[in-house]
Amino acid sequence: MMNSKEKAGLSHLDDQGQAKMVDVTAKVETTREAVACGLVRMQPSTVRLILEGGFPKGDVFSVARVAGIMAAKKTWELIPLCHPLMLTGIDVSFSSTPERGEIALEARVKTVGKTGVEMEALTAVSVAALTIYDMCKAVDREMVISEIFLQSKQGGRSGTFIRSGVLPPSASGS
Amino acid sequence: MMNSKEKAGLSHLDDQGQAKMVDVTAKVETTREAVACGLVRMQPSTVRLILEGGFPKGDVFSVARVAGIMAAKKTWELIPLCHPLMLTGIDVSFSSTPERGEIALEARVKTVGKTGVEMEALTAVSVAALTIYDMCKAVDREMVISEIFLQSKQGGRSGTFIRSGVLPPSASGS
Amino acid sequence: MMNSKEKAGLSHLDDQGQAKMVDVTAKVETTREAVACGLVRMQPSTVRLILEGGFPKGDVFSVARVAGIMAAKKTWELIPLCHPLMLTGIDVSFSSTPERGEIALEARVKTVGKTGVEMEALTAVSVAALTIYDMCKAVDREMVISEIFLQSKQGGRSGTFIRSGVLPPSASGS
Amino acid sequence: MMNSKEKAGLSHLDDQGQAKMVDVTAKVETTREAVACGLVRMQPSTVRLILEGGFPKGDVFSVARVAGIMAAKKTWELIPLCHPLMLTGIDVSFSSTPERGEIALEARVKTVGKTGVEMEALTAVSVAALTIYDMCKAVDREMVISEIFLQSKQGGRSGTFIRSGVLPPSASGS
Amino acid sequence: MMNSKEKAGLSHLDDQGQAKMVDVTAKVETTREAVACGLVRMQPSTVRLILEGGFPKGDVFSVARVAGIMAAKKTWELIPLCHPLMLTGIDVSFSSTPERGEIALEARVKTVGKTGVEMEALTAVSVAALTIYDMCKAVDREMVISEIFLQSKQGGRSGTFIRSGVLPPSASGS
Amino acid sequence: MMNSKEKAGLSHLDDQGQAKMVDVTAKVETTREAVACGLVRMQPSTVRLILEGGFPKGDVFSVARVAGIMAAKKTWELIPLCHPLMLTGIDVSFSSTPERGEIALEARVKTVGKTGVEMEALTAVSVAALTIYDMCKAVDREMVISEIFLQSKQGGRSGTFIRSGVLPPSASGS
Repeated sequence: MMNSKEKAGLSHLDDQGQAKMVDVTAKVETTREAVACGLVRMQPSTVRLILEGGFPKGDVFSVARVAGIMAAKKTWELIPLCHPLMLTGIDVSFSSTPERGEIALEARVKTVGKTGVEMEALTAVSVAALTIYDMCKAVDREMVISEIFLQSKQGGRSGTFIRSGVLPPSASGS
Repeated sequence: MMNSKEKAGLSHLDDQGQAKMVDVTAKVETTREAVACGLVRMQPSTVRLILEGGFPKGDVFSVARVAGIMAAKKTWELIPLCHPLMLTGIDVSFSSTPERGEIALEARVKTVGKTGVEMEALTAVSVAALTIYDMCKAVDREMVISEIFLQSKQGGRSGTFIRSGVLPPSASGS
Repeated sequence: MMNSKEKAGLSHLDDQGQAKMVDVTAKVETTREAVACGLVRMQPSTVRLILEGGFPKGDVFSVARVAGIMAAKKTWELIPLCHPLMLTGIDVSFSSTPERGEIALEARVKTVGKTGVEMEALTAVSVAALTIYDMCKAVDREMVISEIFLQSKQGGRSGTFIRSGVLPPSASGS
Repeated sequence: MMNSKEKAGLSHLDDQGQAKMVDVTAKVETTREAVACGLVRMQPSTVRLILEGGFPKGDVFSVARVAGIMAAKKTWELIPLCHPLMLTGIDVSFSSTPERGEIALEARVKTVGKTGVEMEALTAVSVAALTIYDMCKAVDREMVISEIFLQSKQGGRSGTFIRSGVLPPSASGS
Repeated sequence: MMNSKEKAGLSHLDDQGQAKMVDVTAKVETTREAVACGLVRMQPSTVRLILEGGFPKGDVFSVARVAGIMAAKKTWELIPLCHPLMLTGIDVSFSSTPERGEIALEARVKTVGKTGVEMEALTAVSVAALTIYDMCKAVDREMVISEIFLQSKQGGRSGTFIRSGVLPPSASGS
Repeated sequence: MMNSKEKAGLSHLDDQGQAKMVDVTAKVETTREAVACGLVRMQPSTVRLILEGGFPKGDVFSVARVAGIMAAKKTWELIPLCHPLMLTGIDVSFSSTPERGEIALEARVKTVGKTGVEMEALTAVSVAALTIYDMCKAVDREMVISEIFLQSKQGGRSGTFIRSGVLPPSASGS
């Protein structure tokens, strides 16, 4: 059975369990920041193709970065119960480990507002990952988008959150 | 070094490696279908909260399903080099394994068109997963969106693709 | 109790009552047309203000017409389970009866496609009516948008539909 | 003839009657709330089908609620002269009277901003009503969307407005 | 060679030259205004057709004005690294010189925010010009959209900017 | 005075001069292509800064290219009376003449459809130019976007159009 704290937690559902956009009218505006991460797993040769393929280094990343930034701004349009927010900073970056066949993504999003920007950071990572997938799928159809999670957040009533380093067992592959 | 087949594969990049939308003008329209999968990992108690929480069963799923369907239709708007397509069918479904703390997502998308709907199915899964995250994040901030991949596709010149059952080692957790 | 024909009717809900976008992949493309109507009721003086107010006649209508046309093209983005369609013609027109305090709207939408354009015509009327409301609300806050319905449709398997002239009792005001 | 107060009222039109977005730069931000209502009239059997049809109760309402919430956030995109606003709360609810063949809708929208949220509440109701229409049109093509109006508003220079209970004669059906 | 001031200037590019949305979190909100201009050059007869064509004067301008206003609000969606802003006023106006075959456009945009509205004003002018082009292209395919520039801006740390009257040699046609 | 051919030409205006989306229902689908051009004039040092600035060559172009491609797909959403079209190919390219302080843009768009893609090519050029402006405006506020025109089109009833090489006197700067 669910205790009242848990019940309160699913804040997007009202007393009858119907969806609504949580009322944040009375909350104060504070500076907010969130960092989200993700991975695209692919053949090592696909990573190398992106990095060394004879075309200007990083063009796949350049397109994916723009896609991630633009998607962060559209989060409220994609996620039904997200509040619109005026983002004040978005950064999307990539690092690659060809021998493991991995491209890691990180998005950092900032705002001054009444709600946090966790979903904006997660959306930026997700859409940047999908864009990498799209640009590489002709050579590698078995890519996997994985390990998308919130790394940290700051600001707001609930304060700072930093994810503990260890992923849950089934995700960490141990 | 990259052979010419691989080079051809990154079809979104032209000879100078600049992004462009691939020219599919001359391709014939065929019936296309794609199925994509994904997982949201969370605390077992969070899964149970969604399933048994005293509110109409499945409302989180209901909102996430609508979000996934609507996002599939916007794929061309999110992924820079995707072609616009007139989708003819979209299905998003969920299954849950509370003891493992997992919610599995599947999206099936269809069209009659010149290009496939892999990205549309993957986008539906991603946005539905983000919506689950958004609705549950107040009780469980350590959720992980994971294992988003293409399960199968049909139609088009490259024909049918069915993913082999086994995920890459680092993703399958073995 | 619901008979099977009725059950089949709610075609957006699958066997478990979950929302999905109906699969129209196998349907043939035919020429489609739909006409929808609506009313905005207001003070007679507000109608006159629009018609005779010293500014170029019909500018309120001009803005509302553009809004209706643009909204018709976005129907698939607004109505979750609507299919995207390539509209081939949209017409929005107005007529006014100042002494009754009424502005009547009509939208006619055409396409060649697998599904009908009823929702597109109804959306055009609704958004044009909302635009009239927006432009006039500073002088008349008690306006009512009313009697939005499908007047006729043509094309598709279900053929031609022409609405019988009489509104349901509670709507017709008799 | 129009007096100067009326002329000032059509605030979206400048001296030459050309459309413009009203300048609210100098207005102060205040807490705003608006409530809008609407009706969808249908066959009594259609209402019952929604309510008792063997599928999870209220799924039509669930999809329509999400559609209304998402549309409220897009009001500035649909209504040409509306200002963008950062909505801080959106609620869409339904009640039904099967014997009268009526589903009533209500949307409550909040913000802290320089302009009111009347159009946002009206847009939420309109799009939720269109979504009900879309999901039920296969069994009942003669539905009518009706009586969409502003019930109340609070905040801003013009203060509180509460609609008098009686609809205009032709709308109230007396 | 580029000095450090110039390097700092390309503020959308980080140290590695990767695109990012500039961080304006710490900037104060100030009242901002920007005015942008543009020209559409066409056959003198095309200008006259717009102005005197037997249809309500200015309807091309009316549609183009609405298009420009709506586009200004979507600037953040079109220009990848633009910040979302809540515009508080938008004005688009036209003047014509039939004997020179010119229609001049001006857009004035205001906000209270952390960044300026130059891009919003330029986007309004560009889309209004494209709309004129679209509406007239059936009679005059050789139109040229030209001389789109920032006329002035106010507000923000960099203060007031007023463009010097003379266009660069190649643009001014001298 | 306007002859009937000219009057017919303004095809977006009906008999009363009201805007409507031209009815293309009965037109056949043909392969269409359009090429549009444009210029951004700036200080020679600004061109050099883009080309040689120590960051990966062409990142400004990379972002502008993505912006142009994405905007082409949204043309129907920006230009009120444009038909939605399923674009089958989009290419945006740049060339620069630092000593003249010019960046030239070209967009090539293709589709198979009932209407042409002139507006899509012109929109791609316009938004790519605005993006260049946005990314460089911190170092050069006096840039001018100029000479946006249709270079050629193919397909459709009106056949092939190739622009004569000479711009109108006032645009060509002679």
